[in-house]
Amino acid sequence: MEIKDRVVCLRSKMLEKGIDVYVVPTADFHQSEYVGAHFKTIEYITGFTGEGGIAVFTKDEARLWVDGRFFIQGEIQLKGTTVELMKIGEPGVPAMVDYLEGILQPGMVLGFDGRTVSVGEGQEYADIASRKDAKVVYSEDLIDEIWTDRPSLSTEPAFLLDVKYSGETTESKLSRVREEMKKVGADAHILTTLDDLGWLFNFRGNDIDFFPMVLGYAIVKMDKVELYADENKFDADMKKTLAADGVVFHPYNDIYKDVCNLGGVSVMIDYGKLNYAMYNNIPATAKLIKARNPEILMKAIKNDVELANIKVAQIKDSIAHVKFMKWVKENYNKIEISEMSAMDKLEELRIEQGNYIRQSFAPISSYGEHAAIVHYSSSPETDVVIKEGNFFLTDTGAGFYEGSTDITRTYALGEVSQIMKDHFTLVAISNLSLANVKFMEGANGMNLDLLARKPFWDRNMNFNHGTGHGVGYLLNIHEAPSGFRWQHRSHEVEPFHENMIITDEPGIYIEGSHGVRLENEILCCKGERNEYGQFMYFEPITFIPFDLDAINPDIMTAEDKKMLNDYHKSVYEKLAPHLDEEERVFLEKYTRAI
Amino acid sequence: MEIKDRVVCLRSKMLEKGIDVYVVPTADFHQSEYVGAHFKTIEYITGFTGEGGIAVFTKDEARLWVDGRFFIQGEIQLKGTTVELMKIGEPGVPAMVDYLEGILQPGMVLGFDGRTVSVGEGQEYADIASRKDAKVVYSEDLIDEIWTDRPSLSTEPAFLLDVKYSGETTESKLSRVREEMKKVGADAHILTTLDDLGWLFNFRGNDIDFFPMVLGYAIVKMDKVELYADENKFDADMKKTLAADGVVFHPYNDIYKDVCNLGGVSVMIDYGKLNYAMYNNIPATAKLIKARNPEILMKAIKNDVELANIKVAQIKDSIAHVKFMKWVKENYNKIEISEMSAMDKLEELRIEQGNYIRQSFAPISSYGEHAAIVHYSSSPETDVVIKEGNFFLTDTGAGFYEGSTDITRTYALGEVSQIMKDHFTLVAISNLSLANVKFMEGANGMNLDLLARKPFWDRNMNFNHGTGHGVGYLLNIHEAPSGFRWQHRSHEVEPFHENMIITDEPGIYIEGSHGVRLENEILCCKGERNEYGQFMYFEPITFIPFDLDAINPDIMTAEDKKMLNDYHKSVYEKLAPHLDEEERVFLEKYTRAI
Repeated sequence: MEIKDRVVCLRSKMLEKGIDVYVVPTADFHQSEYVGAHFKTIEYITGFTGEGGIAVFTKDEARLWVDGRFFIQGEIQLKGTTVELMKIGEPGVPAMVDYLEGILQPGMVLGFDGRTVSVGEGQEYADIASRKDAKVVYSEDLIDEIWTDRPSLSTEPAFLLDVKYSGETTESKLSRVREEMKKVGADAHILTTLDDLGWLFNFRGNDIDFFPMVLGYAIVKMDKVELYADENKFDADMKKTLAADGVVFHPYNDIYKDVCNLGGVSVMIDYGKLNYAMYNNIPATAKLIKARNPEILMKAIKNDVELANIKVAQIKDSIAHVKFMKWVKENYNKIEISEMSAMDKLEELRIEQGNYIRQSFAPISSYGEHAAIVHYSSSPETDVVIKEGNFFLTDTGAGFYEGSTDITRTYALGEVSQIMKDHFTLVAISNLSLANVKFMEGANGMNLDLLARKPFWDRNMNFNHGTGHGVGYLLNIHEAPSGFRWQHRSHEVEPFHENMIITDEPGIYIEGSHGVRLENEILCCKGERNEYGQFMYFEPITFIPFDLDAINPDIMTAEDKKMLNDYHKSVYEKLAPHLDEEERVFLEKYTRAI
Repeated sequence: MEIKDRVVCLRSKMLEKGIDVYVVPTADFHQSEYVGAHFKTIEYITGFTGEGGIAVFTKDEARLWVDGRFFIQGEIQLKGTTVELMKIGEPGVPAMVDYLEGILQPGMVLGFDGRTVSVGEGQEYADIASRKDAKVVYSEDLIDEIWTDRPSLSTEPAFLLDVKYSGETTESKLSRVREEMKKVGADAHILTTLDDLGWLFNFRGNDIDFFPMVLGYAIVKMDKVELYADENKFDADMKKTLAADGVVFHPYNDIYKDVCNLGGVSVMIDYGKLNYAMYNNIPATAKLIKARNPEILMKAIKNDVELANIKVAQIKDSIAHVKFMKWVKENYNKIEISEMSAMDKLEELRIEQGNYIRQSFAPISSYGEHAAIVHYSSSPETDVVIKEGNFFLTDTGAGFYEGSTDITRTYALGEVSQIMKDHFTLVAISNLSLANVKFMEGANGMNLDLLARKPFWDRNMNFNHGTGHGVGYLLNIHEAPSGFRWQHRSHEVEPFHENMIITDEPGIYIEGSHGVRLENEILCCKGERNEYGQFMYFEPITFIPFDLDAINPDIMTAEDKKMLNDYHKSVYEKLAPHLDEEERVFLEKYTRAI
């Protein structure tokens, strides 16, 4: 069935159920950023495959809101679907909630699947409906009723992450979480986010492509833990280990009826994470304590074992990248290398490093004008051979047992134009300026992002995505709560704490021509403490050259050059011992001082 | 009566009323930053004269919380008072609310005057009390009961600000405010902030030292306005003008009973501005619409008439400053000039410029180590003669009919040390870096502040105050909602809009030695609009040299020097036509390219 016919089917379901406006977010029941096949409702009903997007359907209109990362992709994928693309933040484009406010009329019914929206979102929709004397229905999954061949929920096995990788036992983690519960007077803590669940119980799984999650929920109590997950995914050893930590298994969906029994209990919930349907099942007599999941910050601040592992993983991936860079630079004009085949080579080089599990997210491999599509995904239909005269960009990640990486490099193939070099150079300056910032404890990504923007803003240019995000340890590749972003989001003002790992990934994208992005991971460290307070800085942990063939020294200040040379010096020092002679000569050339 | 005896009196009043913990903020009933003599309860009960501070009293303890601006002043003024200074944000110092949470016990009574705290604050105190099974009493002004010679409320006359200064009639302003009310479905809008009141009705008064406010409240309805203010302050002409705009007078305090009659009405209120006592008088059947006062943004975005006037006021004050700089530099070692007598000279030079009303805030005139006290106030007891070898800092403002200024300059007297010059140079670099920032529409002060901090943070230094604030037009000198500040405050994330006026005032303070601050006003302007969006920049409107005698070019980059030379070039061009030959020669010397 074509997309436009699916939309027609949805409209007849809406008519049948008396729903005037129907909202479909990209979401599972856990507020995951990336979702399993079963939950790809947006892709089913609009054809859009990006991981962010929210669609609204009425009897006459179908609209999909996406952010800057997906403007180009959205335009391409929505062609012929009858779904209109709404570019968030662009002039004249109303916010989705403002649009709802505008179209709802007295007596209308606003519908959505309450399991797929957060409490905060659900309440916002309910507030809007109430203001317009409209009604909300949140129990209908209309997509499910029309999606006949919908994939079932994943049944992939789970595995235990040894303490030599996790660095902290579940017993210890539970004890810290319970301390936080005590502080706010909570008897129970409902945990619905999959990465928090994996972190707390030191298990990983395979329920979402690339992201080693296990679908599940938990209610952490003072003396035990109720775990709602498919027990068949766990082997006997794992069950024994979990049982020793007071974990009791229940079927995945039983939590919806169990929360009905929380009357009189003090329950800690995260309004941004709990879904609206579950929230509404909690009895009015429960005492709700609104607090951010304590696991979020605990998980983002890496422990010493994790850090030591992560540094190993980054060296492994840096080695693979340098070998890859050499292979690309020396072979692109000798053998046929395409966007997709290059990924096979990179994967092969990573596997050679040992202890490799799989890619940590869907790889981006893009040549030429494809590199201007921020979240481009190469497919057999779009795959092209890379060749002289443009940039080849890879934004990829490895999942080793020692942790996940997220690295972007852009390589010049042969001679590229002056404007391309200038763009590359600006991105390098941007990346290094941010990595070299010194700041006071308490500063957050909204404070620091300017250093990455300045080379562009000074020239009336910009890139339309955040500059960096936290990175999970074999969990989500985009990990809250800290990151680099200049635009205010209420949930992203968490300061940088010592031992957080953040990406640093500015870019520039010229539609139809070329794109550049350079991404390293950096580690937040404590610097000097004096009468002014505690100073902080970042330490690079990714060591791969910024392609000097694409650098224009004429637009760099002396300070810019020093930053680049210092970085390249550390790249050589860290990697040379791991390379053979021919590779060392290559690395020496590409890390030379300019 | 000494302060410590007053605290004893307060404690016996607390005992008498059964109040265990009593909170005294620095506040009038309007959430004003600066308050009239009648409202200076903190000064009465602790001796602290700064304009920010909140005190908590128990039977054993007395504590006063102040922010970084007042650490040194607080230490001096609290000596011997039995009141303990709590330095907000310093390690080991609990936030005031955390302290409350810690000391409240079941059955205790927490007291405060509900007219002096905002709805948000009052609710926070009530929540804390509720969590600790304690009770709140907000109807007691205990300070009033012990303060026998308390000044009465001001009865100073009001005056009308002609439309040639305000640029917009009250009729037009009311119409814009009513549009905002319609958008949120409000029938009534309670306005309690004095500067919003003055802006909306184009009147000014004299009820707070330096700040031309009229004590009052208003309820804006769709067809009329209820104004609660002392009618005797207004002359017949003003009353006629106001009556034409549908304004009906009521006694100042009548609003507390009138809001009891708002049952069934949709009332727009600003939780951060309305006081807790008034909020509690509004009947439960009123439909409360929580929204920021629309006047706040309207007032901060200056209209063309205001802008033309403000530029005139800035040129006038810049002329006065250059004459003052010349007088100080040429005379400090010839005649006796003290911190206080210098202020008389500056005032005299401002009066010469014409259309001068009065200083726009309490002037800071500080020499040597006094300049390290950020909000130092010279008094006959502390006044010193200025002399060779240190800095003389003035942070002062003029209120002309053409608008208010807020300007800080630091002058080197004779030769100063190398470290002093380095500090001065860093402050100049900081000021100019921020003033020269280019940014995208939507950026706020938390995004941009880094440019002012960077010269310091790079050297493990900092200054403990915000970098800039909006400036009112003959209203508050610190005007919401936009400013430069890196630390997150939920109310300060308003982006910079075209035609906002902001101060740019970094500094550095070495306790017991010296201090430097350089403050200009800058105007937010629209730059290029292109495929990336709307770019913005700031235009300087204050034109006074940064003392070249204190600049060390060796620590400046080529870019730093260009910024300084460009600024000095514009200073010379703007001011030279207004000066005599001898002054021009002086200005030429102090604006020369380095």
